Amino acid sequence: MLTSRDKNSELFLGIDGGGSKCKAILMNKDNEILGTGISGPGNPLHGFEQATNSITESAKLALKNADLAHIELNELVAGVGLAGVNLPVLFDKMAAWQHPFKTMHLATDLLIACLGAHNGSEGAVMISGTGSCGFSCIDDEQTIVGAHGFPHGDKGSGAWFGLQGVKQVLLSLDGLVEQTIMTDVLLKKLNCKDDTDLVEAVASQKATYYAQQANLVFDAAELGDKVALAIVNEGAEYINSIARTLAAKKPPRMSMIGGLTPRLKPWLATEIKANLEEPLNPPEVGSVLFARQQQGKLAIQQSA
Amino acid sequence: MLTSRDKNSELFLGIDGGGSKCKAILMNKDNEILGTGISGPGNPLHGFEQATNSITESAKLALKNADLAHIELNELVAGVGLAGVNLPVLFDKMAAWQHPFKTMHLATDLLIACLGAHNGSEGAVMISGTGSCGFSCIDDEQTIVGAHGFPHGDKGSGAWFGLQGVKQVLLSLDGLVEQTIMTDVLLKKLNCKDDTDLVEAVASQKATYYAQQANLVFDAAELGDKVALAIVNEGAEYINSIARTLAAKKPPRMSMIGGLTPRLKPWLATEIKANLEEPLNPPEVGSVLFARQQQGKLAIQQSA
Repeated sequence: MLTSRDKNSELFLGIDGGGSKCKAILMNKDNEILGTGISGPGNPLHGFEQATNSITESAKLALKNADLAHIELNELVAGVGLAGVNLPVLFDKMAAWQHPFKTMHLATDLLIACLGAHNGSEGAVMISGTGSCGFSCIDDEQTIVGAHGFPHGDKGSGAWFGLQGVKQVLLSLDGLVEQTIMTDVLLKKLNCKDDTDLVEAVASQKATYYAQQANLVFDAAELGDKVALAIVNEGAEYINSIARTLAAKKPPRMSMIGGLTPRLKPWLATEIKANLEEPLNPPEVGSVLFARQQQGKLAIQQSA
Repeated sequence: MLTSRDKNSELFLGIDGGGSKCKAILMNKDNEILGTGISGPGNPLHGFEQATNSITESAKLALKNADLAHIELNELVAGVGLAGVNLPVLFDKMAAWQHPFKTMHLATDLLIACLGAHNGSEGAVMISGTGSCGFSCIDDEQTIVGAHGFPHGDKGSGAWFGLQGVKQVLLSLDGLVEQTIMTDVLLKKLNCKDDTDLVEAVASQKATYYAQQANLVFDAAELGDKVALAIVNEGAEYINSIARTLAAKKPPRMSMIGGLTPRLKPWLATEIKANLEEPLNPPEVGSVLFARQQQGKLAIQQSA
């Protein structure tokens, strides 16, 4: 008969920590999600304390949500995928964290997203949400394209589209580019009466703010607005170029994920769209799959 | 015989407060600069306390530099030109400051730059330093083109050129744009060995940091580097378009000023370069000229 501790060894926490929130799931051996927890930002680039607190909190909330609050975190194996830890200095810092779990398997948000999308198998993903990048994991070799951050990178991301929209509206208000229907929409959305108001509204704003302005660029492009069309085509072409770089590695499967996917995917090149397959699971499930794979490797090492 | 107080009424403080420093001069009625003072940042957008402290400190340093430290600030009329106060909310906040001067005449950094360049007469200026913009003052009507800030505006500025350089180097390292000699120069300058290092180095950096990377873009363009040439030509074309917008207002004189002028001016369109005249005085002298003009208007009002 299984003891309580044996049973808990069949439970895995899967965590996906990003710039705006941290999501945790508790999953059993039959791949059923028993509980879910969401907490604050989980990207250690924006604060180590904040990120570690968010990870712990989301895990506890997932246990509570599963009516298993009596289980301690130190009884559970966790797969933790985090934005930011593609930077070695942050990976090392997070790996050295005195975490509350029985075991923590740390991975980049890119790897868990890819594992999730392809149900634990190898493949490639293009990601466009607040940021953008491409990633593939083939023959255990990981390739990252982009993932550079805002405003110096992340072309084709929500933040990039929103920033381009704001830029072109400001230039248009100065008469330096042609008129665009984005101008009235943006001014109204941000409650601005003129370019001075707009400059005040956007001063010192971060990527998440600009990402909130991405939809109006796509709305305008879909109505045939020339300025918006130029932005959307430039951003889509960048994602095309990421897709072509990844396709050269011959991934068994390729998916597009991230919050901007429904808006951006229709604008990609036909042959790239044709090659995209639906993501099978979200990133936090990828974290569980990653943790199971790592536990499997540990077991093989221990029995060898 | 003139009393000490009468003599001091012939002295003016001229202040130019920008994002990185605040410069003050003390000038006599014969337009001789008696003393100069430089202090910290003077743009109230980045902190009201910092800006007002910098203004006061630079003024005191100018008096000390003139060996006139016994003169109190409340004996002197000051012309104060500041970045940031083109935003009405900041102009009002600065105008309400309990300043230490006898009288303070507040103006935008654009107006004092233009008055300085044209020795108090009307005209137009294109400015490219850390930021960029165009400005004209003709028939007492002021026109601003650009001056929107970074990263959503300020195309053709030092910050813009530096950011484009970093962007293209990152894309080039990903194989998404052709190779550029900027890559090796930038990695070496920032002490980076690869794109991961570079992303760490530039994460969350501000306009002044990017402006420090502008020169290497011009260096590469002058060596015929295609990626750098595309950046320089795009930035120059934006400044051309500002110049054409201002030229349509028929300014008696047009100048280009700002720290990037020596690098950028050679790339402007021939007919625009031919139309540019040398700036006659720096912005802080423009502040004195502005203060004198305003004092003159006050005197006329009082005698009417």
